[in-house]
Amino acid sequence: MAQGSWIRRMFEEGAELKERYGPENVSDLSLGNPVVEPPAEFHRELKRLAENPPAGMHRYMSNAGYAETRAAVAAQLERETGIPFTGDDIVMTCGAAGALNVVLKAILNQGDEVIIFAPYFPEYVGYIENHGGVARVLATDEHFVPRLDTLEGVLGAKTRAVVINSPNNPTGVVYRQDFIRELGGLLRDRSAHLGRQIFLISDEAYRRIIYDGIEYPYIWPHYRESLVVSSHSKDLSLPGERIGYIAANPACHQRQELVAGFIHCNRILGYVNAPALMQHLVGRLQSVTVNVADYQKKRDFLFRYLVEMGYSVVKPGGAFYMFPRSPAADDVAFVRELQRHLVLTVPGSGFGTPGYFRIAYCVDDRTLEGSLDGLRRAAREFMG
Amino acid sequence: MAQGSWIRRMFEEGAELKERYGPENVSDLSLGNPVVEPPAEFHRELKRLAENPPAGMHRYMSNAGYAETRAAVAAQLERETGIPFTGDDIVMTCGAAGALNVVLKAILNQGDEVIIFAPYFPEYVGYIENHGGVARVLATDEHFVPRLDTLEGVLGAKTRAVVINSPNNPTGVVYRQDFIRELGGLLRDRSAHLGRQIFLISDEAYRRIIYDGIEYPYIWPHYRESLVVSSHSKDLSLPGERIGYIAANPACHQRQELVAGFIHCNRILGYVNAPALMQHLVGRLQSVTVNVADYQKKRDFLFRYLVEMGYSVVKPGGAFYMFPRSPAADDVAFVRELQRHLVLTVPGSGFGTPGYFRIAYCVDDRTLEGSLDGLRRAAREFMG
Repeated sequence: MAQGSWIRRMFEEGAELKERYGPENVSDLSLGNPVVEPPAEFHRELKRLAENPPAGMHRYMSNAGYAETRAAVAAQLERETGIPFTGDDIVMTCGAAGALNVVLKAILNQGDEVIIFAPYFPEYVGYIENHGGVARVLATDEHFVPRLDTLEGVLGAKTRAVVINSPNNPTGVVYRQDFIRELGGLLRDRSAHLGRQIFLISDEAYRRIIYDGIEYPYIWPHYRESLVVSSHSKDLSLPGERIGYIAANPACHQRQELVAGFIHCNRILGYVNAPALMQHLVGRLQSVTVNVADYQKKRDFLFRYLVEMGYSVVKPGGAFYMFPRSPAADDVAFVRELQRHLVLTVPGSGFGTPGYFRIAYCVDDRTLEGSLDGLRRAAREFMG
Repeated sequence: MAQGSWIRRMFEEGAELKERYGPENVSDLSLGNPVVEPPAEFHRELKRLAENPPAGMHRYMSNAGYAETRAAVAAQLERETGIPFTGDDIVMTCGAAGALNVVLKAILNQGDEVIIFAPYFPEYVGYIENHGGVARVLATDEHFVPRLDTLEGVLGAKTRAVVINSPNNPTGVVYRQDFIRELGGLLRDRSAHLGRQIFLISDEAYRRIIYDGIEYPYIWPHYRESLVVSSHSKDLSLPGERIGYIAANPACHQRQELVAGFIHCNRILGYVNAPALMQHLVGRLQSVTVNVADYQKKRDFLFRYLVEMGYSVVKPGGAFYMFPRSPAADDVAFVRELQRHLVLTVPGSGFGTPGYFRIAYCVDDRTLEGSLDGLRRAAREFMG
């Protein structure tokens, strides 16, 4: 809980600093709250619906979501992957957080283990524990990629799922095709050996925020027992609207029962259904994405300066985070030092990985430029 | 789980019947999914926001919700009750279902008991169990009002909360002022005696759907440790949008820590925050309600005919449900019989109270009129 709250703690402390020093003097790089507005197509569709609201637009629908929205998500996944998804593989959810909770509630028995890799999105641990699971945290290599040999030793009779997140929060790393293929192979072998269904859950909230023309390596062809949780918080810049989905591999064992379980859990966890109006909207916007080139420019800008300042940082291939090594051994102390320079970040300790800190660069250019001075000064203090 | 799914099962079976016989030939009285559209003020505000979207309208905000929305909810509660609520007493949630889950997560320890009264909204049991609680179900009297003598005997060292729901789903009963006062007195005495904080949780999703000029009896003056969970699903006819709130009694013991706990649980349960756009809207519509006279007319119409047909039914004072006694001893069999007459209702077994069935009359007049013949025929078959 103390860990999980670092991001929000920095956000709240930031609000105080802004009040004291004026918001224009504080560089808030603490929260993945994109400053980018939703695309023009979103505003156009919202206006269209507001002007001619179809009857019953705000009523309950199936707990799975609107059939049209589910079909639209499936069609987009088919366009991207060539795999014949249908609406029956999709459940609309209250964001990716809702999606992951629903999946975990549906698949976990008391004491089941879920493997996650540090650095990880800190809420994962709480979500797993919400549903009686046990989080097993494994370290990653120097590029923040999971070590498959470590994973192999840990997959066992209690493992129910492995969660990956690519592009990654907090590192921005995008896993490579080879890695995904090997991961799928390993899970196939081990689950056959153990006689146990082990799910690969891929958190793809940042799938469309990807740079340098990388082709996104999908998990679907590499492992049948695979589930994607995602949202439109980042690709349509709608984080406050809580609109996301679960997609199940059409080839998954007992796919129909599994999806029925998700629909059931969407209800019994109190989500009931994904917000209706947003379902209407995102169903029409599946092929639309915010301007990713904007984020790439911000990444290039920040990365260049961080390297120049002497920070050690893995160049991110997606999302809008960087995870530099903390120049001070104590990452919390370093983040506090940055705070004194009115630059807000989050200590790596908040992501299960002390010795680093996270920068969220989904901010306007002025804020990003304004942060450079503080980042430089703080670095100098510790790098000598 | 089998119990809880009766409502949805009837809804899904109804969809099949509609496909087979044509929707115009099926009277679907199974789901509290109001056919009434949101008020004109809602559409006007939505249009205004769509035409001039303020910057950042869809971003994350505090997990508690927008300060303006919380203040607006507080101001409305103050107007209604005279009690000086502030935004700090309010947490915006994903509907009343989200609100109740957040409250239970925050206040329950493993094994704590939560008392509910049959007939009850069936999801309550699941929500309590989601968070390690144990549901204790108590019967009500012949008017569906909780028996305080029974309650007194059950309040004990494991009781953490008592949940009431007025106007009630599924009975439509509105508890009287006297009852609320006595309930508050009993809880005060027993919690003092037990040295234990016992919360009174009032589910007020239907507070504004109230008939015959009844004054709504608020819990606030009668018990300090009181919490309201509510939503705008019914009063603004937005059930698919998942927008609701928790209100804590300003006089509640450790109110600040309690609300902080709710905000925390809103995050860790994966709700994160109530949908942003809907928060903007309902913040401006706190004094607006759908046309309740419409619902009252439907109640009067249906009640008159049911009595005429020989059904035994308590006249509801609010919400949009009736809970007649089943003419057959087996309520499930009777509901199946109604289904054969293409009238869809829900057996009382789904609400922990066999021997009754629920009619949701939040439908258009044609559907309500269309149901009379089937209701009459089925009654005749069993009443002889």
